[in-house]
Amino acid sequence: MQILLINPNSTASMTAQALRTAQRVASPGTVIDARTGKNTPVSIEGFSDEALSVPAMLADIRAAEEAGAEATVIACFDDPGLDAAREFAAGPVLGICQAAVQAAMVVAKRFSIITTLPRSVPAIEDLVLRYGASQHCRRVRCIDLPVLTLESEPERAFDLLLAEIARARDEDRAEAVVLGCAGMSEMTDALTAATGVVVIDGIVVAIKAAEALVGAGLRTSKANSYAFPRQKD
Amino acid sequence: MQILLINPNSTASMTAQALRTAQRVASPGTVIDARTGKNTPVSIEGFSDEALSVPAMLADIRAAEEAGAEATVIACFDDPGLDAAREFAAGPVLGICQAAVQAAMVVAKRFSIITTLPRSVPAIEDLVLRYGASQHCRRVRCIDLPVLTLESEPERAFDLLLAEIARARDEDRAEAVVLGCAGMSEMTDALTAATGVVVIDGIVVAIKAAEALVGAGLRTSKANSYAFPRQKD
Amino acid sequence: MQILLINPNSTASMTAQALRTAQRVASPGTVIDARTGKNTPVSIEGFSDEALSVPAMLADIRAAEEAGAEATVIACFDDPGLDAAREFAAGPVLGICQAAVQAAMVVAKRFSIITTLPRSVPAIEDLVLRYGASQHCRRVRCIDLPVLTLESEPERAFDLLLAEIARARDEDRAEAVVLGCAGMSEMTDALTAATGVVVIDGIVVAIKAAEALVGAGLRTSKANSYAFPRQKD
Amino acid sequence: MQILLINPNSTASMTAQALRTAQRVASPGTVIDARTGKNTPVSIEGFSDEALSVPAMLADIRAAEEAGAEATVIACFDDPGLDAAREFAAGPVLGICQAAVQAAMVVAKRFSIITTLPRSVPAIEDLVLRYGASQHCRRVRCIDLPVLTLESEPERAFDLLLAEIARARDEDRAEAVVLGCAGMSEMTDALTAATGVVVIDGIVVAIKAAEALVGAGLRTSKANSYAFPRQKD
Amino acid sequence: MQILLINPNSTASMTAQALRTAQRVASPGTVIDARTGKNTPVSIEGFSDEALSVPAMLADIRAAEEAGAEATVIACFDDPGLDAAREFAAGPVLGICQAAVQAAMVVAKRFSIITTLPRSVPAIEDLVLRYGASQHCRRVRCIDLPVLTLESEPERAFDLLLAEIARARDEDRAEAVVLGCAGMSEMTDALTAATGVVVIDGIVVAIKAAEALVGAGLRTSKANSYAFPRQKD
Amino acid sequence: MQILLINPNSTASMTAQALRTAQRVASPGTVIDARTGKNTPVSIEGFSDEALSVPAMLADIRAAEEAGAEATVIACFDDPGLDAAREFAAGPVLGICQAAVQAAMVVAKRFSIITTLPRSVPAIEDLVLRYGASQHCRRVRCIDLPVLTLESEPERAFDLLLAEIARARDEDRAEAVVLGCAGMSEMTDALTAATGVVVIDGIVVAIKAAEALVGAGLRTSKANSYAFPRQKD
Repeated sequence: MQILLINPNSTASMTAQALRTAQRVASPGTVIDARTGKNTPVSIEGFSDEALSVPAMLADIRAAEEAGAEATVIACFDDPGLDAAREFAAGPVLGICQAAVQAAMVVAKRFSIITTLPRSVPAIEDLVLRYGASQHCRRVRCIDLPVLTLESEPERAFDLLLAEIARARDEDRAEAVVLGCAGMSEMTDALTAATGVVVIDGIVVAIKAAEALVGAGLRTSKANSYAFPRQKD
Repeated sequence: MQILLINPNSTASMTAQALRTAQRVASPGTVIDARTGKNTPVSIEGFSDEALSVPAMLADIRAAEEAGAEATVIACFDDPGLDAAREFAAGPVLGICQAAVQAAMVVAKRFSIITTLPRSVPAIEDLVLRYGASQHCRRVRCIDLPVLTLESEPERAFDLLLAEIARARDEDRAEAVVLGCAGMSEMTDALTAATGVVVIDGIVVAIKAAEALVGAGLRTSKANSYAFPRQKD
Repeated sequence: MQILLINPNSTASMTAQALRTAQRVASPGTVIDARTGKNTPVSIEGFSDEALSVPAMLADIRAAEEAGAEATVIACFDDPGLDAAREFAAGPVLGICQAAVQAAMVVAKRFSIITTLPRSVPAIEDLVLRYGASQHCRRVRCIDLPVLTLESEPERAFDLLLAEIARARDEDRAEAVVLGCAGMSEMTDALTAATGVVVIDGIVVAIKAAEALVGAGLRTSKANSYAFPRQKD
Repeated sequence: MQILLINPNSTASMTAQALRTAQRVASPGTVIDARTGKNTPVSIEGFSDEALSVPAMLADIRAAEEAGAEATVIACFDDPGLDAAREFAAGPVLGICQAAVQAAMVVAKRFSIITTLPRSVPAIEDLVLRYGASQHCRRVRCIDLPVLTLESEPERAFDLLLAEIARARDEDRAEAVVLGCAGMSEMTDALTAATGVVVIDGIVVAIKAAEALVGAGLRTSKANSYAFPRQKD
Repeated sequence: MQILLINPNSTASMTAQALRTAQRVASPGTVIDARTGKNTPVSIEGFSDEALSVPAMLADIRAAEEAGAEATVIACFDDPGLDAAREFAAGPVLGICQAAVQAAMVVAKRFSIITTLPRSVPAIEDLVLRYGASQHCRRVRCIDLPVLTLESEPERAFDLLLAEIARARDEDRAEAVVLGCAGMSEMTDALTAATGVVVIDGIVVAIKAAEALVGAGLRTSKANSYAFPRQKD
Repeated sequence: MQILLINPNSTASMTAQALRTAQRVASPGTVIDARTGKNTPVSIEGFSDEALSVPAMLADIRAAEEAGAEATVIACFDDPGLDAAREFAAGPVLGICQAAVQAAMVVAKRFSIITTLPRSVPAIEDLVLRYGASQHCRRVRCIDLPVLTLESEPERAFDLLLAEIARARDEDRAEAVVLGCAGMSEMTDALTAATGVVVIDGIVVAIKAAEALVGAGLRTSKANSYAFPRQKD
C-alpha cells in the first residue's frame, strides 16, 4: 500500500522527520511517499501560512494518486486544506489533528493538546469544535516556541513540553496529551517515558488510520461535498 | 473611505456586478476598489476552488491596503480565506456570509439561506455553525444551478430563486432569506418585491458593515490569532 | 437618517453620555433622538431592573418611529427587551451587547467582556450563548462596581477597568475586550490608548450598525416572530 | 403550603381554568393563591405581550409572598419574566415551560411541544435551548389558533390538537407531547385518552414541582444572579 | 404512595442513610421501599461499578413495581442504568443526578457539583451535558475521597466538603452547590448552615420529584425508547 | 496481534457473521478471538438489553486480555458498556458505532445511519452527540425490523436497507451511510454495489481501527476515568 505523506511547508528536514516517524510505525508492505511543499512557507504558523501551502499540496495529491497513492496524510497539525484535499483525492485523506483527536477520544475521556505558538491555540480550538471533541478536550496549551525551534533547540523544546505535559496532567486532569505540531513527533516516546502520560502524536495515528481505512476498503465519498472539482472552461 | 471589494474568482463580469451592487449602497465618499482573482477558478464551487483563490486574494489585500484601502469585503459566499485575510489585513475584513448571517440575526429570528449547488450546502452549514447561527438558521437550501449560470440564464435563475424563497417561507417558516452566492446580488430587490420576504444580500450588508467598522474606529486586532504573519527566512 | 438612542434607565446623565458617544461617531446627516427611561430604575443591575424598564421603552420606540426614527439602539448592555422592541419597531433594532459581540467576532477571534457587577455576569453569558458567540468569548469578567459609580468615581472605575483588561489579555489571551456597560463608553479610547488592546464599546458599534442596516435597506422582518403585536380587544 | 399561581395576562377566565387545574392536582394542605394580570394584555402572544405583563407580575409576587406564598408558578408557557421573578421572590419560581420540559425529559426520551400561534414557535424553541432540552425536543409545533380561541371554540381547538398530537407521534416519533399554552390545560386528560400519547400540561407539573421544591426545603438562591434587586435611591 | 428507593451498591448502611434522608422529606402517606444491591460492588466508583450494579437493580425495579411501587429513585449520583430502568419501569424513574441538576436550574442560575473521587468527575460532566445543564454548571469538583470514607471518616469528609463549597462559591461564583454522591446526603443541612450556600442533595429532590410526577399522573412513556423490553425466545 | 471481538448478545450465529466479516478485513498476523455473550439477551434492542449484556462482556474482556488480546471490539452498534470496558481493559476498546462515526467523518462530510428498530433511533442519536458528530450526521433512520430478522429474512432486510439508503441519499443528501447494526455487516458490499453509495460497516472499521491503535503503540489511558476499577473489600 502506498501512502502520500505530505508536509505542506517547505522545510525538508521536517519532512524527513515525519517520514522517519511514519516508517517506524507503518505496516510491512506500506510504502510512504513523502513530499515537501514547494514554494510554501518554511513553517505553518497561522492562517495565511496555511493558505499559502494548500495549492501546492493539492497538486501533490493529484500527482501522488496518479503515481499510485491510496491514501494521504497531511503532516501539519492545523490540518490545512483538509476539505480541499478530500475533494482532490480519491483515497481517504487524514489530517493529523483530526486523527489524533479521534484516537484520543478512544483511549481517554479527557485530553489536552500542546502546540507551539499562542497564535495557533484558537485555530486548534476551532478544529476541536469542528471535529466534535469540545467535551473531551480540556484545553489547548502551547509552549510559546516557533515551529522551527523544535529542530534548532530540541532540548529546550523537550523541557518545555515536559513542563507543559505536567501542567496538563495536574491542572486539567488530562488523561492523555496530544502533541499539537508535526515537528514534535520524534519526542513522543521520550515524553511518555519521562512523564508516564499517554502522549499521542498525530503522524503516528494518521499513518495507521490511513492504512486502516484503505484496509477497510473505504475511499473518499464523491457524492456532494467531496466530489471532484467541477470541470469549467 | 476606500474599501477593497475582492471577487476571489477570475470572472470579471461577476466583479462588475458586485461593484455595481456595492456602489449602489455605498455612502457618499466611499470609494470601492474592486479586484478580480488572477489565475483563480472562474467560479468558487467547492473547497478546492476556494483554496486555489486565496493566495492571489492575500496579495491583493496587501496591495490594496498599501494603496489606501481601509477595509476589505470578500465577495464570495463561502468566505474563502477569511481568517488568512484577517491576518494579512490591518483593516477589518468582512466575509459576505458572516455579514449576511449577522444582519439576518438582527432583523429576523429565523432565516434560511439559498445557494447555488448542492455541494455548497454542507460548506455553508459549517460556516453557519462557526458564526454561531445554528439556532437561527432554519435550513441551507440550493437551486441546483452552477454559479455562472446565474449570469448566462438569469431568468431561469430568478424563477428558481422565487420558488425556493417560497419554500423557505412556507416549509421552514423562514422570516428572512439570505442569498447564498455573490452572483445573486442584483436580483435582491426584485426577489423582495415579488415575494414580500425580507431578502438579504451579502455584498450589500458587508459593504455597509465595512463602512460601519471603519467609522467605529475598529481595525483587525493584531494580538495573537490575526497578528501579521511571522517573518521567517 | 434619524436614529432612536434609548437609555432604558432613568438617569439622564447616562443618556447624555451615550448621546455624546453616539454623536462622535455618527455619520453626517444622522440625527440621534436620545431618550431616557421614564419611571424606570436609575440603573439596570439585574433581571427585574430590565423588566421594569421595558414597557416605557416600547412606548418610546413607537413614539420615536412616528416622529421619523428609522432605527433603534438600546443603550444598555443587558439588551433588555430586545425581542419585544423588534416586535414594536418597523426599523432595525440594535442591542449594544449583540452589536459589540458581532463586531468582536469580526475583528478578533477570541475576546472577553468586562461588565460592572458580578450579578450581571451570568446574564451576559446567556446573551453570549444566544448570540452564538460562546466559542469566541473567553470569559465574562466584572470590576465589581455599581453602574452609577462609573459616573461618580470615574477614576476608580478607569483603574479597575485597566487592571481587568490586563487580566483579560494575559489570563484569557483575549484579542479584544468588549466593555459590558453603556456607562463605560467615554473611557473607550483612553483604555485602548493605555493598554494597546482593541477595546469595543457597544454604543459606538451599534450606532454604526444601525446606520449600516438602514443604508442596506433592511427593516425588521414582520413575518412571524417580530410581527407587530396582534390587535386584541 | 401556599402557592402563588399567577396568570400574567388579564383574562380572568384563563386564571379560573388554571386554578381549577391546579386544585385538581394539589396536595391536601396546599392552598393556591391565583392572581390575574392587572392592565396587562388579554393574552400573551409575542414578546411585547410578555414584556407588558411582567411589571404587574413582579408586584404580585412581592404581595403574595408577604401574604405567605412559599412558591410561585407562572401560568404562561412563554415563561415571561422568569429570571426577574426569581430575583423578586424568596421562594422557588416555576415557569410552566421549564417545568414541563423537565418532566418530559424524565418520562420520555424525545418529545414535541404544541403551541397556539406560529409566532410563538421560535420563542419556545429559544426556551428549549435555554433549558438544555434541544437534544430531547423533536419539534415545536402549533395549531395556528389565537390563545383566546381555545376558550371560545374549545371543540375546534381540541380537534386541532388531536390532529397535531398524531403528527407529533407519527412524523416526529415523539414519545410524549407537551401542551404549549396554559389555556390547554383542561384538555390534557381527554387528549391522552383519545390518543394514547403521554400528554404533559405545564400547570400540572409546575404545581407539583413547586410543592416538591418547598418540601425539599429549597428556596431561590440569593447569591449573585437571583439576589434581591439592589436598593437604589 | 409507594416509592422504590434503590441503592445500587451492596452497602446496607448507605441504604439506611438514604432511607433516613428520604423519610425525613417524604410526604405523609408516602412509603419508601428501600433496597440494596445484591452481589454488586460495595460502592460505585467508576463505569464498571455502575455496569455491575444495573442487572440486580432492574430485577429490583420489577419486583418493587409488582409489590406496588409507583415510582423509583436511583440513589447513586452516577445515575447508573437510568435509561434501562425507565425501560423496565411503568412508573417514573428519577436519577438523583438528573433530579438535582433540574432543581439547581430552578433555584440558581449557576451551580457547581462536588463529588468524591477525581475519576467520577468526567462521568458526571457527561451527565451534565446529557441533561442539558452545561451552560448552568460552572464546574464539577471533587474532594478526592473514596465513597465509603464518607461513612468511616465523616468529620474529615465534612471538612473537605466545607472547603470545596467555599471554593465553588468564591472561584466559580457558584450560586448553589449540588452534592455529587448519595453518601453525602445527611451532611446537607449542616453544610448549608455552615456556609450559607444553597446546598442541594439529590436524594431529597428526587424523592420529592417522584412524588410530584406521580401526583401529576405521569408515568414513563412506553412509546418507543422506553417501551418495555421486547419479548424474545 | 490478537483482537477480542465480542458479540455481547448470546446468538452464536451473529458472532459467526461478525467473525467472518472481521477475518475478511484483518491484516495478516491478526488473530480474532470471537466471543459470544453468556446468559445475555439474544439480541440488543434497547437499554436494558444493553445493561444485561455488559457484566458478562467485562468478564470476557479480562479473560481475553489474560489470554493475550491486545485490543477489543464490541460488536454491537449501541456500544454497550463502552466506558466500563475501557476501565477493565488495558488495550484500546473500540465500539463499532464510534468507529463507524469516526470513519464517516473522514470520508464524507454528511452521513446518515440506518438501524433496525425505531426504539434504537434515540439511543443512537445520543451516541452521535456524545461522539461529537451531530453536525455531520444528517439523520438516524431505521428499517423497523427486529435484529434477528436480519438473519431469518435476509432478502427482506436487504430490500428494506436498499430503499432506506436511497432515502438517505435523496432526502438527507447523505454522502455516506453507516449501517447501524452488527447484523448487517455481510450485506455491506452488496449494498454499496447496488446503490453506489459509500456504505460503512462498524465491524470492518473497528477491526481496522483496533489494529491501527495497537500498531500506534496506544493503550487505554489508566489515568483517572479509565483507571482499572478500585480494589475494594
